[in-house]
Amino acid sequence: MATEGKVIRCRAAVAWEAGKPLVMEEVEVAPPKSGEVRLKIAATGICHTDSYTLSGSDPEGVFPVVLGHEGAGIVESIGEGVTKFQKGDTVIPLYIPQCGKSLFHFMGCSTFSEYTVVAEISLAKVDHMAPLDKVCLLGCGITTGYGAAVNTAKVEAGSTCAVFGLGALGLAAIMGCQAAGAARIIGVDLNPDKFKTAQEFGATEVVNPKDHSRPIQEVLVEMTDGGVDYSFECVGNVAIMRAALEACHKGWGTSVIIGVAAAGQEISTRPFQLVTGRTWKGTAFGGYKSVESVPKLVEEYMKKKLKVDEFVTHTLPFEKITEGFDLMHAGKCIRVVLQF
Amino acid sequence: MATEGKVIRCRAAVAWEAGKPLVMEEVEVAPPKSGEVRLKIAATGICHTDSYTLSGSDPEGVFPVVLGHEGAGIVESIGEGVTKFQKGDTVIPLYIPQCGKSLFHFMGCSTFSEYTVVAEISLAKVDHMAPLDKVCLLGCGITTGYGAAVNTAKVEAGSTCAVFGLGALGLAAIMGCQAAGAARIIGVDLNPDKFKTAQEFGATEVVNPKDHSRPIQEVLVEMTDGGVDYSFECVGNVAIMRAALEACHKGWGTSVIIGVAAAGQEISTRPFQLVTGRTWKGTAFGGYKSVESVPKLVEEYMKKKLKVDEFVTHTLPFEKITEGFDLMHAGKCIRVVLQF
Repeated sequence: MATEGKVIRCRAAVAWEAGKPLVMEEVEVAPPKSGEVRLKIAATGICHTDSYTLSGSDPEGVFPVVLGHEGAGIVESIGEGVTKFQKGDTVIPLYIPQCGKSLFHFMGCSTFSEYTVVAEISLAKVDHMAPLDKVCLLGCGITTGYGAAVNTAKVEAGSTCAVFGLGALGLAAIMGCQAAGAARIIGVDLNPDKFKTAQEFGATEVVNPKDHSRPIQEVLVEMTDGGVDYSFECVGNVAIMRAALEACHKGWGTSVIIGVAAAGQEISTRPFQLVTGRTWKGTAFGGYKSVESVPKLVEEYMKKKLKVDEFVTHTLPFEKITEGFDLMHAGKCIRVVLQF
Repeated sequence: MATEGKVIRCRAAVAWEAGKPLVMEEVEVAPPKSGEVRLKIAATGICHTDSYTLSGSDPEGVFPVVLGHEGAGIVESIGEGVTKFQKGDTVIPLYIPQCGKSLFHFMGCSTFSEYTVVAEISLAKVDHMAPLDKVCLLGCGITTGYGAAVNTAKVEAGSTCAVFGLGALGLAAIMGCQAAGAARIIGVDLNPDKFKTAQEFGATEVVNPKDHSRPIQEVLVEMTDGGVDYSFECVGNVAIMRAALEACHKGWGTSVIIGVAAAGQEISTRPFQLVTGRTWKGTAFGGYKSVESVPKLVEEYMKKKLKVDEFVTHTLPFEKITEGFDLMHAGKCIRVVLQF
């Protein structure tokens, strides 16, 4: 049955209010307006940012909302004036903000829904052979961590790197450091269960701060004869952000914040840390120009130059979304992907 | 009378203990040892760092000490194995740490003395025609501020810059922004007496935070339609360091800390400031390789491509050093130069 031009009724996981469980509802998805594209979501990852917003901690969060921003799908129909996409295209939504519907869009994507409408400029067309239940992760986590290393930090061959936090972001950062030719990649986490995977992804050493009585930055400075060339904070903890900066070598060390800290928290350090030649940066979407870059990352994955499958530890049907959130909170997965 | 190989007795302004006035004393300067050079100081600037160390606030300060690190002079004799210098060379000492005498050397220079001994590697040979009572300032302040703009921030043509603090460092940063082709250079200071000079150095606009009820970063963000491309903190105040960062445009703005904060103080901001694409850096000696770069800066000055004379508002004989410090504390000078 042709759906073009008609309102589609479908299932979506609705966040009615902060701190409450998602509710599977039937929602109405309007046809795409001028410059918009409606797509059928095939798969979506669950990211910590979804959980953070659902918790109500994000001061910019609005409710009710359909969360989800790490998805992949197929174009169902296009709005007036859309020329870059056509029905049947394989696409990944990109989280450039957009709103204007009765349910607020989340990060311009709202992938926790069978159908969603996004702006044409918030969509990347990718290889139609790509497995959507894998490449959906290129919509956020993998791209952000990988890009933090290759774009934001511009890791150089032969360098020494430290990655704080060995979840999906951290593993992607390790993969980026390895792709850039880093000689040493030191993984740091409080949970030793994360170490084996980190080493499979390219960590040459792993360190658990619990095994040391001194601050972790001092441990790293000693291990590396003065500090690392690049460090990455993939946790979202302001104390770790400081440690990551102070673990850098004076004169040239660069630290990149990737994790998202809770609202109201602040980073701090002695200005001497910067005056002596360290650089403190952050990254959003790994410094990529999303529309151009996501299709290229999908290509790299298809050529087996980029790990993606290895991030997907659990695949669940869409209706088990709450179970997916639970797995993430328990730290028992790298990424959970929901299939529609 | 030949002095080579002999101990020289000469005048030096000795800092016997923290917080006490300098005392003009007769000191003994030993002949240069292997790898060392003894020079006759011709002129020296007085920098806030000298004052900071004299105050006792610097936890790494040691006493007694001969301060001064912004000098210029003539080689009097060389130690064994020194090949890059000979008697009569015109030189600028470079503050790479060194110690080992009965009076501690300050920043490897100790220019508040008629004679001083420095390591060969802490010395730059410059044009013998250069006026030493001017180019001594290339040993610290001018080079640091100018280099912060052209090397550390790498200011681009057409960009918008903000310079916080319009003393010698700030004026040098303005000069660097102008040399790099910045389209807008906004000078920020609480003291309106500084504005005329800042405009002569290249500031296209000046702002006094006292004229605004909102935080200065908000004022600048509004003035520049989203924030400046580059900002420079030339005061040494951690609150201003934060304002300078937050005045930067998201996505690409870079803030450089040049000023030296008091011991124990910390900078802070929301990590969101960095995650949204700002970069926080610092600079020491303007990111220059000192031995190579100082002679080139002297050349640029001799070709009238770099202002130096304009920084020297007061010239005093060496024995009036205390008066020089008083002028600096009163904010009535750009730089005081002492002549020997």
